[in-house]
Amino acid sequence: MTEPTAALSPDTWTVAGRTFSSRLIVGTGKYKDYAQNAAAARASGAEIVTVAVRRVNLTDPNQPMLMDYVKQDEFTYLPNTAGCFTGEDAVRTLRLAREAGGWNLVKLEVLSDPKTLYPDMEETLRSLKLLVKDGFDVMVYCSDDPVYAKKLEEAGACAIMPLGAPIGSGLGIQNRVTLRIIIENAKVPVLVDAGVGTASDAAVGMELGCDAILMNTAIAEAKDPIRMAVAMKHAVIAGREAYLAGRMAKKLYADPSSPLAGLI
Amino acid sequence: MTEPTAALSPDTWTVAGRTFSSRLIVGTGKYKDYAQNAAAARASGAEIVTVAVRRVNLTDPNQPMLMDYVKQDEFTYLPNTAGCFTGEDAVRTLRLAREAGGWNLVKLEVLSDPKTLYPDMEETLRSLKLLVKDGFDVMVYCSDDPVYAKKLEEAGACAIMPLGAPIGSGLGIQNRVTLRIIIENAKVPVLVDAGVGTASDAAVGMELGCDAILMNTAIAEAKDPIRMAVAMKHAVIAGREAYLAGRMAKKLYADPSSPLAGLI
Amino acid sequence: MTEPTAALSPDTWTVAGRTFSSRLIVGTGKYKDYAQNAAAARASGAEIVTVAVRRVNLTDPNQPMLMDYVKQDEFTYLPNTAGCFTGEDAVRTLRLAREAGGWNLVKLEVLSDPKTLYPDMEETLRSLKLLVKDGFDVMVYCSDDPVYAKKLEEAGACAIMPLGAPIGSGLGIQNRVTLRIIIENAKVPVLVDAGVGTASDAAVGMELGCDAILMNTAIAEAKDPIRMAVAMKHAVIAGREAYLAGRMAKKLYADPSSPLAGLI
Amino acid sequence: MTEPTAALSPDTWTVAGRTFSSRLIVGTGKYKDYAQNAAAARASGAEIVTVAVRRVNLTDPNQPMLMDYVKQDEFTYLPNTAGCFTGEDAVRTLRLAREAGGWNLVKLEVLSDPKTLYPDMEETLRSLKLLVKDGFDVMVYCSDDPVYAKKLEEAGACAIMPLGAPIGSGLGIQNRVTLRIIIENAKVPVLVDAGVGTASDAAVGMELGCDAILMNTAIAEAKDPIRMAVAMKHAVIAGREAYLAGRMAKKLYADPSSPLAGLI
Repeated sequence: MTEPTAALSPDTWTVAGRTFSSRLIVGTGKYKDYAQNAAAARASGAEIVTVAVRRVNLTDPNQPMLMDYVKQDEFTYLPNTAGCFTGEDAVRTLRLAREAGGWNLVKLEVLSDPKTLYPDMEETLRSLKLLVKDGFDVMVYCSDDPVYAKKLEEAGACAIMPLGAPIGSGLGIQNRVTLRIIIENAKVPVLVDAGVGTASDAAVGMELGCDAILMNTAIAEAKDPIRMAVAMKHAVIAGREAYLAGRMAKKLYADPSSPLAGLI
Repeated sequence: MTEPTAALSPDTWTVAGRTFSSRLIVGTGKYKDYAQNAAAARASGAEIVTVAVRRVNLTDPNQPMLMDYVKQDEFTYLPNTAGCFTGEDAVRTLRLAREAGGWNLVKLEVLSDPKTLYPDMEETLRSLKLLVKDGFDVMVYCSDDPVYAKKLEEAGACAIMPLGAPIGSGLGIQNRVTLRIIIENAKVPVLVDAGVGTASDAAVGMELGCDAILMNTAIAEAKDPIRMAVAMKHAVIAGREAYLAGRMAKKLYADPSSPLAGLI
Repeated sequence: MTEPTAALSPDTWTVAGRTFSSRLIVGTGKYKDYAQNAAAARASGAEIVTVAVRRVNLTDPNQPMLMDYVKQDEFTYLPNTAGCFTGEDAVRTLRLAREAGGWNLVKLEVLSDPKTLYPDMEETLRSLKLLVKDGFDVMVYCSDDPVYAKKLEEAGACAIMPLGAPIGSGLGIQNRVTLRIIIENAKVPVLVDAGVGTASDAAVGMELGCDAILMNTAIAEAKDPIRMAVAMKHAVIAGREAYLAGRMAKKLYADPSSPLAGLI
Repeated sequence: MTEPTAALSPDTWTVAGRTFSSRLIVGTGKYKDYAQNAAAARASGAEIVTVAVRRVNLTDPNQPMLMDYVKQDEFTYLPNTAGCFTGEDAVRTLRLAREAGGWNLVKLEVLSDPKTLYPDMEETLRSLKLLVKDGFDVMVYCSDDPVYAKKLEEAGACAIMPLGAPIGSGLGIQNRVTLRIIIENAKVPVLVDAGVGTASDAAVGMELGCDAILMNTAIAEAKDPIRMAVAMKHAVIAGREAYLAGRMAKKLYADPSSPLAGLI
């Protein structure tokens, strides 16, 4: 019994009827090669990998192919729409993906501009409606606007994925207040997607009550991606267990009768 | 091969000639009973437990005894001087402990007042010199003053243990700047002792380059101490691995040519 | 020459063709009475006060009337749509206000729910388009989503007013990253509206490059509102001047050759 | 009546029997020349300037002399011991200064090393005792260790001056917890000395309840030192007035019945 976590509870989460044990989803971009990508995904303990359908080679047998390394019997593929800027683009891309690989659980991201890679929520919501009508199970990358998060859920999103900070920034979770409000209001899973830079960032997200974390750059651009994948595996478990354990109260100091708390 | 960490490296740390794999030291105060304490210590993966010689029953066989639960064949005991306010007190207490249990590796803490439990560095340094002369291996609880940290090392401390925040506060690491300077300057292990409230706090300490973390209240006063012990086990590994992996650079956003970084 | 600021430059800002010296806009809610409100507005140095057309008595001569205290020859009235939840409501309310008081420069806010008072950006943008078509000059309360900020500007907003934190929370500016991106991209004035709790919060907003700050609760719910109004007057000037002055670089310590900066 | 602050109260502070209106003390190092230094000091509204006796030319009439620009009929000189590393050095330096200029109110700083410029508290306390015995009124630069702050006061310091961050770093106040504890315990004035980088940092210090702020680099190394001096003048007033006004309570959002506060 070397793994107390497992012994404590079968702590799983479920999205669109599929149940997972790992609360870490990793990406398939920015790695040196597919072999390194596969090693990192394996070290992270992830059960889901997200794949940019337009950017990753899924079809040309003359080039190295992602699925020869990151294998579908090991990982659930979550195709995403990186590179799509309209709902029509997104629907077309994911339909092709569904035909090619049978993937029905997808991640929608509709970005506004190549500089900030910030999501365009108006177009994202419109795209979501098209995809839902088309029968997809859609996890949605979004801003941390609690009102839009609710709109996405009401439009049929099977998971809400607010950014913690801009994609690729590594700045960590900037706004804990909005993230908490989103989690409080949601009836579907909430995942932090984008912004994690190091292990403690992932732990913070889980401590706030997220169901899972999605990251790519924090692992792929670490000096040692495999080692950082291990770090993230533990960080997500740590944050989850701390959330479930219920943290101690904060006090200004050991003596709880302090009059100062309000000033700090 | 379910534990990638172990595969990557035999990542150990050494204090006073003794080598440990776990980088988490836990306390033996504030638990419901010794049985819960033992279960939490075990769940945390700790190899060392710190024991307040004056407060924990080590000698009265008519009362429940700590070592019947937290056993010395499972854990290295690190006696501490909680409740001592002078060097003479500290030396007397630790001599008795050494005679009773043979413990030579000890933790010195000389506190100033019962309200803040802040260390008195002047008296701590004086006490350290007495203990070193008496042949003890002394790990020293201290403020996060880099100059005093260096003085302690020069006086023979075998580990420097700055607080992250007041004892029992759970406020997390308040001053990353001084902690980094202490770590940069030290040739002996540096541990964060006091102030950790939840898992991400422990990860932050390790990411800054600490060798280990010592905590008591964060586990003992969590709603579910056993579960929080598991969280802390993973948090310390996560922070350590992230430190070794080397985190990605922070950017304002994906486009690195931004002129804004300096303003945030 | 007791006021060096004035001597340094005629530092003004312009919205919809009107130029102001004060960069602080204050509210007219939550005060003990209109007399206290007027005294606070005066102490703050504000030139503009925002008025919830539906909540403040502007028309019933048998009750105390706001404009008998907060006089229009002293302050520019900025009517707002607090209490409106659709574009049609907003247009109707502001049309009545325009007929009654001749106010053409208005503040649009379309909130989502009474608990968080978070803006509904989809409905806000729709409302804005109706108001612009109707000839209003519209300053728009919004989330801190940079993409929506740009949409508002393109739809004709004469000022963008992102929240720093939820209305009435006093939590201070939560997300400096998105605020900086909004400021960088905007060609119209950007004001922090909502979230300021104390003086340093207002200074932070101005240091990031905002053109002005709007606040109500931070003054009205301070123990001494008049004194807090004075504090805010100085805070806004302080932040503005610091922004214009160009702050010193941050260093880990005096010696600039430190290798540590990236870790803190 | 352009200055409401003055009207509200004669808000002064007193150190060693001398009463001042301005709560900002500025330095006399790192400026382009003495003329710029004088202009900045004047713009800041400071009544006290601190002078490094060993570094500033106070005696050689063939070189530009500080007091020809920063005049003693405008400013109270506060000689400091920058460059002294022992109590004997400090006493010798300040005795010479007292003989030369009649200055009895002095600032003691005993630094540990040229890299971090962190104070050596052991030597500082020893030096203080020598200076007090010698009849000086001594304001003491110190770490933010609350126990040492109390020792300094008990040894006769007439003001306690903890650092907010390392000298010259501009990092802002790192540890609000220890600063609050120091202020709560002190019966003499507490000033933040070192670490301020921009206006909001100074406001934060005053909001915590400090009596005044001392700074040098933040003004001298701003792109426009005169303008930053104006900013700091307003920031210190803003923070002071906010402290006296008593800030609003922080809430997660407008609805105070939220169950979330403890998680953020």
